[in-house]
Amino acid sequence: MDTKVRALKSRLLEINDLESANALLGWDQSTYMPPGGAPARARQMATLGKIAHERKTDPELGRLLDDLKAYEQILAYDSDEASLIRVARRDYEREAHVPAAFVEQLHHHGATSYAAWTRARPANDFATMEPLLEQTLVLSRQYASFFPGYEHVADPLIERSDEGMTVTKIKALFSALRQKLVPLVQAICSQPAADDACLHQTYSEEAQAAFGVAAIKRYGYDFERGRQDKTHHPFMTKFSLGDVRITTRFKTNDLGEGLFSTLHEAGHALYEQNIDQNFEGTPLAGGASSGVHESSSRLWENLVGRSLGFWEHAYPKLQAVFPAQLGAVSLDTFYRAINKVQRSLIRTDADEVTYNLHVMMRFDLELDLLEGKLAINDLPEAWRQRFKQDFGITPPDDRDGVLQDVHWYAFLVGGVFQGYTLGNLISAQLFEAALAARPEVPTDIARGQFDTLRLWLSEHVYRHGHKFTTGELLERATGKPLTIEPYLTYLNKKYGTLYALELRVDAE
Amino acid sequence: MDTKVRALKSRLLEINDLESANALLGWDQSTYMPPGGAPARARQMATLGKIAHERKTDPELGRLLDDLKAYEQILAYDSDEASLIRVARRDYEREAHVPAAFVEQLHHHGATSYAAWTRARPANDFATMEPLLEQTLVLSRQYASFFPGYEHVADPLIERSDEGMTVTKIKALFSALRQKLVPLVQAICSQPAADDACLHQTYSEEAQAAFGVAAIKRYGYDFERGRQDKTHHPFMTKFSLGDVRITTRFKTNDLGEGLFSTLHEAGHALYEQNIDQNFEGTPLAGGASSGVHESSSRLWENLVGRSLGFWEHAYPKLQAVFPAQLGAVSLDTFYRAINKVQRSLIRTDADEVTYNLHVMMRFDLELDLLEGKLAINDLPEAWRQRFKQDFGITPPDDRDGVLQDVHWYAFLVGGVFQGYTLGNLISAQLFEAALAARPEVPTDIARGQFDTLRLWLSEHVYRHGHKFTTGELLERATGKPLTIEPYLTYLNKKYGTLYALELRVDAE
Repeated sequence: MDTKVRALKSRLLEINDLESANALLGWDQSTYMPPGGAPARARQMATLGKIAHERKTDPELGRLLDDLKAYEQILAYDSDEASLIRVARRDYEREAHVPAAFVEQLHHHGATSYAAWTRARPANDFATMEPLLEQTLVLSRQYASFFPGYEHVADPLIERSDEGMTVTKIKALFSALRQKLVPLVQAICSQPAADDACLHQTYSEEAQAAFGVAAIKRYGYDFERGRQDKTHHPFMTKFSLGDVRITTRFKTNDLGEGLFSTLHEAGHALYEQNIDQNFEGTPLAGGASSGVHESSSRLWENLVGRSLGFWEHAYPKLQAVFPAQLGAVSLDTFYRAINKVQRSLIRTDADEVTYNLHVMMRFDLELDLLEGKLAINDLPEAWRQRFKQDFGITPPDDRDGVLQDVHWYAFLVGGVFQGYTLGNLISAQLFEAALAARPEVPTDIARGQFDTLRLWLSEHVYRHGHKFTTGELLERATGKPLTIEPYLTYLNKKYGTLYALELRVDAE
Repeated sequence: MDTKVRALKSRLLEINDLESANALLGWDQSTYMPPGGAPARARQMATLGKIAHERKTDPELGRLLDDLKAYEQILAYDSDEASLIRVARRDYEREAHVPAAFVEQLHHHGATSYAAWTRARPANDFATMEPLLEQTLVLSRQYASFFPGYEHVADPLIERSDEGMTVTKIKALFSALRQKLVPLVQAICSQPAADDACLHQTYSEEAQAAFGVAAIKRYGYDFERGRQDKTHHPFMTKFSLGDVRITTRFKTNDLGEGLFSTLHEAGHALYEQNIDQNFEGTPLAGGASSGVHESSSRLWENLVGRSLGFWEHAYPKLQAVFPAQLGAVSLDTFYRAINKVQRSLIRTDADEVTYNLHVMMRFDLELDLLEGKLAINDLPEAWRQRFKQDFGITPPDDRDGVLQDVHWYAFLVGGVFQGYTLGNLISAQLFEAALAARPEVPTDIARGQFDTLRLWLSEHVYRHGHKFTTGELLERATGKPLTIEPYLTYLNKKYGTLYALELRVDAE
């Protein structure tokens, strides 16, 4: 079996190397590539993607995995080797369902649609995107059709990023969450709005960057095994467990933009940097799911980075960097500013409370599209109506309405947005478990010490990489399946205090 | 035939994409990669190299090229399509001679040896390198053995980078050149040394970088299709004809270091940026040979960048950037400083006159090694003796002696050094032809205008990419085969004037 395991690892390593190289091509495209490099870069990424797909679906790999089935059975489920074989087989089976020609078609269509979207959004031009989005919807349904036997047409799409999740499960979580969120938003929005003028003075980019770097070093982000660069749309990317990079962006008139995007991406990076180093070069060297990954970024951005305790330690430092802007602003005012709740148009700018309503709306609309209940043609109007219903305001145009997010225009309809809200839920459930196990965490955070929290997360989540599904991981780490209660408790406690709500919304 | 040509192009494009991706991995490794990324990066580059080699030697590619032979015959030799088929066949035949196992062994040995060299050189430790260099020599001879029928064991190694060149041809050129260079160096070194103290004041890196960028923009380097970053050992690299990057380094106590390395790499980049855009993604999208490539870098660095005319226009600008350092330094003093001739230890720091003696010495030593006349064990002593003989000084240690250049320690013995001197010769031959065709070039240079020269080079050299061999290209561009006369004429005229030599060394 040793020979077969070695042969498997060698094949997986080659796939990993191709995908890591492709990730570098993508990183460079978003950071340093000169404009003239664009056409060839798209082609090069397609070529590497194609070669990787060939290797991922090589029947020899399938036979090797078949041969290893009996061996896997005698190993402990959570052993590294059994997990490697199990996850590799799952990946192989999923990839093998999808014909190479479809992958190529999807890539070309995605690139065309994305390029059109970068022009159509500023021009507020949904009409141009309509036929492209029609085709994206066709491809999305086609993708699902490669996995016959699904319960809902969106399930295979969701399975890609949040394995084990289904429309049925997500709908149950989302509708329970929604019932509590809507009155909470209403209660908050009937209060006077928080004053966030202090964030919208002039903040030099260099000073913002230096403060952000110092903050994430304290979190434990290791710059010997990573780096930070600037980009338009911040992301985390990984070329190996020894090279996990983040990107950020700054606005000189909005202190929150760069700061929280830095903390968010560092949250993703802390996950990857703390995966068991023995997993390097294998499919275990990654996050469990899009939801769990997002839980780490949201935890470090929000549950830690927007907490009062964090700023008790960090705010005097920030004031020292920006004495003219913040010297006379109290911690309380600053804390309210960075946690201002408001009904706003843009998902990525939304506060913790309203954010999930943005996500749910997209999730519901894409189900309607996939089910054929809603035509692309009617999507902009459906967006406006739903937005009015959920937020009480009507988007003035498609630019900040149906065209605002890149997802539907660059890849597929379905399978992505749910991860953001799942991430919020998971972040609170993990944080609650961490606090139960390590009651000193809040005190540590207020002293600018994050090792206790990071080590708990490493032990119970990060180090396992892709070994377990979201459900398995949550059971192990928190003793419970995914549940909305910790998140609601967190929101109620934090925002109940912040807004002195008379009507406290109960989590139970 | 159309189908076959398309099939050929598609295969070549895939090879090109893999190699371009690998070039980006290398660029990142030398510019931005954090230390933790190193082990995986070496592995990823080996994987991409291996896959590229598989595709380059795929027998299907060979059959396709066979099928296209008859078609190639009816096309004009210098047509794009005939050239593509011809060059692709030559590449294929060369690659197919080399077994994949050898390529892999060479890669691993090279990486091991290079890593050892980075420690051994600062430690002045040749003993550690000795067994590794022994093995490198074995591999170098083995490489040659894949090409039976050679006249000299170094010929196949030279053919890799300077196609059409042989030891016999190079020896003839070098010995004629040497006869004239030695007395020239003697004549100059019997004069009082030039004073270059003005270059060794304190120069801020930012100001140096800004001046360098402005200078190469004037040369015509297109930052929309390239960029400049910092590195330890400057190089030019290309990911597509739309993305040709350069790197540089600065010393705050040596103005020449950053400035001339910038002009040098820009010279390489001007070549690549001006290749016919229709060649993108094919083996024609590259330089004709290592010698011709080096001719472009040396031309823009030396024949232009160290000329009096260039500085007539540029020096007042440089003085304006560094008024404290250069305000009181005359143009004449500065010009003499940047052209100071001296017998020195390090090839890469050598002036235009002594530089080629460094190259010839290495070339002769590697022939002795390959021929078995010299043992690795005796190499350090042979280096010292030859250096004393050629330069009148003995290197104080191996660090600045036999260990100084990376080439023998990272790849193979043989086939690289000759390109530097060939480049010098070709630079002067091309420059002479450009001046004959466009007598206004010197006046233009003195006005800071480089379009005439760059356009002449583009028309006669750059745009052709890899279409022609060095010999073919020189015949077309200058009407002559490669010859030493233009270079000697250039050196004699420039340094005769600079050093007011009584004994003028004749070029004829």
